[in-house]
Amino acid sequence: MELTGGLFIGGERRQSDARFHAYDPAAGADIADAGFASASEQDVADACAAAEAAFLPYSTKPLEARARFLETIADEIEALGDVLIERACRESGLPAARITGERGRTVGQLRLFAKEVRDGAWQKLRIDHADRERTPPRPDLRLRMVPLGPVAVFGASNFPLAFSTAGGDTASALAAGCPVVVKGHRAHPGTAELIATAIIRAVETCGMPAGTFGMVNGTSRKVGETLVADPRIQAVGFTGSRGGGEALMRIAAARPRPIPVYAEMAAINPVILMPQALKARGPALAEAFVASLAMGAGQFCTNPGLVMGIDGPELDAFVARAGEVLSGQAAQVMLTDGIWEAFESGKAKLAGSAFVTKVAEGVEADGPNRGRAALFSVAGKDFLADPVHLHEVFGVSSVVVRCASLEELKAVLGELEGQLTATLQVDEGDYPEAQALLPVLERTVGRVIANGWPTGVEVTHAMVHGGPYPSTSDPRSTSVGTLAIDRFLRPVSYQDLPEALLPAALRENAQAGTVARIDGSWTI
Amino acid sequence: MELTGGLFIGGERRQSDARFHAYDPAAGADIADAGFASASEQDVADACAAAEAAFLPYSTKPLEARARFLETIADEIEALGDVLIERACRESGLPAARITGERGRTVGQLRLFAKEVRDGAWQKLRIDHADRERTPPRPDLRLRMVPLGPVAVFGASNFPLAFSTAGGDTASALAAGCPVVVKGHRAHPGTAELIATAIIRAVETCGMPAGTFGMVNGTSRKVGETLVADPRIQAVGFTGSRGGGEALMRIAAARPRPIPVYAEMAAINPVILMPQALKARGPALAEAFVASLAMGAGQFCTNPGLVMGIDGPELDAFVARAGEVLSGQAAQVMLTDGIWEAFESGKAKLAGSAFVTKVAEGVEADGPNRGRAALFSVAGKDFLADPVHLHEVFGVSSVVVRCASLEELKAVLGELEGQLTATLQVDEGDYPEAQALLPVLERTVGRVIANGWPTGVEVTHAMVHGGPYPSTSDPRSTSVGTLAIDRFLRPVSYQDLPEALLPAALRENAQAGTVARIDGSWTI
Repeated sequence: MELTGGLFIGGERRQSDARFHAYDPAAGADIADAGFASASEQDVADACAAAEAAFLPYSTKPLEARARFLETIADEIEALGDVLIERACRESGLPAARITGERGRTVGQLRLFAKEVRDGAWQKLRIDHADRERTPPRPDLRLRMVPLGPVAVFGASNFPLAFSTAGGDTASALAAGCPVVVKGHRAHPGTAELIATAIIRAVETCGMPAGTFGMVNGTSRKVGETLVADPRIQAVGFTGSRGGGEALMRIAAARPRPIPVYAEMAAINPVILMPQALKARGPALAEAFVASLAMGAGQFCTNPGLVMGIDGPELDAFVARAGEVLSGQAAQVMLTDGIWEAFESGKAKLAGSAFVTKVAEGVEADGPNRGRAALFSVAGKDFLADPVHLHEVFGVSSVVVRCASLEELKAVLGELEGQLTATLQVDEGDYPEAQALLPVLERTVGRVIANGWPTGVEVTHAMVHGGPYPSTSDPRSTSVGTLAIDRFLRPVSYQDLPEALLPAALRENAQAGTVARIDGSWTI
Repeated sequence: MELTGGLFIGGERRQSDARFHAYDPAAGADIADAGFASASEQDVADACAAAEAAFLPYSTKPLEARARFLETIADEIEALGDVLIERACRESGLPAARITGERGRTVGQLRLFAKEVRDGAWQKLRIDHADRERTPPRPDLRLRMVPLGPVAVFGASNFPLAFSTAGGDTASALAAGCPVVVKGHRAHPGTAELIATAIIRAVETCGMPAGTFGMVNGTSRKVGETLVADPRIQAVGFTGSRGGGEALMRIAAARPRPIPVYAEMAAINPVILMPQALKARGPALAEAFVASLAMGAGQFCTNPGLVMGIDGPELDAFVARAGEVLSGQAAQVMLTDGIWEAFESGKAKLAGSAFVTKVAEGVEADGPNRGRAALFSVAGKDFLADPVHLHEVFGVSSVVVRCASLEELKAVLGELEGQLTATLQVDEGDYPEAQALLPVLERTVGRVIANGWPTGVEVTHAMVHGGPYPSTSDPRSTSVGTLAIDRFLRPVSYQDLPEALLPAALRENAQAGTVARIDGSWTI
């Protein structure tokens, strides 16, 4: 399949003289092809107008048609075959095994949301029957969730498939009944184009309105800013840097009609080594820690950027073994030159702190954009003396905090900003102390893990990939798992509507097969 | 019971030399008593610190204890007896029947939320069991909703009981497990104090932590601004003017850690007279319309401020009868002098528009702060020529829009901002046209009513008292009804936690008696 670089607007492809090129981070050079169109403000407005025009026809299709559409997108992505894997690897510097796995996750996610659409419980159907005898008479009230409207989705550099064009935000917005306009990430425009063509094929096959999906690209921040400011956009999904997310939040809040922004931003994902666990299996924990840290060149939102333990010989052994393993780690190609530069500068800032010790470094880089692994340590009492430790360094870099006591560890934890995850390495003897930490962790994070590692985010019903600010802009939600659909819905109540005017799902006895609440009682 | 005017901070009463007085709008004069303490910044900070200290002990009480606490607040409010009714009437100018009804609504609401706490479905319990054989192994994941943290609640002038100190925001926040700090409305400080003492008695009786409830008062905007900016506050509930709500939204968005603001603000609640209904029962509709409009001196968020119909003799008859009834309406005491002044100025602006005709006025005022009813009309084609028609005039004032056709009516509807409600007066012959309007209404409002009136907001499971901006700051929620609890919750996921460390509600086979989702399937 030949890439043309055109934008996706209302089912049409649109070219522009303003173009940019994809970049091959492993080679450290642009990919020499026809390049990609940069969207003008008019292009963005046209994509939003098409999405708005699609909203009513798309959102009122039967749920079964919506589910089939999501499944057809998954099928069409698989039908792209190896060309997708090759392009995504070339644009991201990620190995084929990882991208192949990510494709599986992406299509699995689309199919899970298709099932979720059919499940229907997200509609929150509620009926309170009238009581005409009461004084005053009690009306008949019926409630359901409706989609918000067109949604803007920003592709993420670190997941060219699972968090980008047809990633979790797009899948959950489409599942909710919202058309989507994607701002493709400049780091993988060819991958984005391939996926977008798969979605457009599904739009056509399933007879969905042309504006159900659109994509605008560009290297200027103006493209994304124009998209978020467009009055037709009703919500925003974003995964990326804190600076980028906060810029979008400001634009959304300053609109005449503000809209929700679901931005998944910065996290350092503390790992807590409880004393008994550390004593029983310190070196094994060290090895598993480095494996989690180094996975995918450390470019995960859930990367374990902070490890905390009680100072002593057991922590010494952990640090020694972690340093040993880490020093054998090859430098890995990072996603973009900008990300590599930010990684190098983040490590330099850590190394430059008077309070920080460099424990180990990985194998030196042997080519462009290769990130050299690093491990640092700092004393608990010094941890908060220099806020450098609180900032995410995106890549294979982590800081071990040596705490004098569990009290100090708890104090350090209490000072952390909101996080996506916290991990406890815990043995039975640690349970009483762990129990005391849990309330602190619950207030700080979206997911608490025991005896595992934060990387690896299962796409399922009970997953929360979210957390207090600044890990996300809105802790009331998750961007992974079926609960993500709730982000794009709002409740509407219907009072005393004649049966003929009620939405089909709210008519009398029409709730079979889904969860509903009738006169306060739950039925399935 | 003697009023002391003290603030409620951490279970203590605190006085201040800075004082303000309650106002009797019917008399047009201050109430001469000891007055009420104005909170300093330190007072606000102390109340927030107490709420934060109460958060963990309060939120981890068993659900049954939390439910009993809400019921005890209801009991204590009833135990206040007539002194509450008298004070609320005097401070609000509202008649005793209305305040007595509002007390019933307030205690009913508290008891409904007690039931909701016991129901437990709001916890969204989800369990996805592990699959250790899968490659990679699938972890055990469990999810529940947890409370956000201390919540700031702003009392509303127009519901001194149901939307104020122990109103819907307080009841739903306490139900969610969040301590509450109320900023009492200056229009009814004595009423607020009585209710606060009832809550504090319940706190003591039920053994809840002292900071579970606090209240700070004052006439300066600084008090509320300091409260919303306090880092310990995690969400805000507000009912009031658009200017007030938007000021709080700006403060919340500018915090280092932004928080959600649930502000219920301006609405004009369009009523659509469909042709067949208008023909069949125009004069009866006119009478019912004026009754809804004039109720409570028109001081409802859901007041019908806009009526739309197709121009012609039937609409003439409606307008004539409405004008006739309205002209017999006595001027009613409004809540405050400021609200009365805003009402007079709003009517003057309408009357001053070149496009607007004054249809009728009520009986002239015979005392201070009495709002004289008014009805206006405007042609559909002129409706948008002067945005004055789009602004809420809080009081007994409404505008009839004479549309040339259903198409023009639809166009006018499409230009409206977000609304709490839309009402259809509709007969069977109107169904096809009404059907075509419904998607427009669903996008614009939170509640669609057929053949009723927007005033009268039932407190139940299927109620939505919310809607798109600017009717509320966040259309994803409701401030009335059991769904309001969701506003103060966020999801947390637990991965591979040993049974001993799991929250009790998420342990194996502990979900009996509530709705839960186990491995994707729903159980009750």
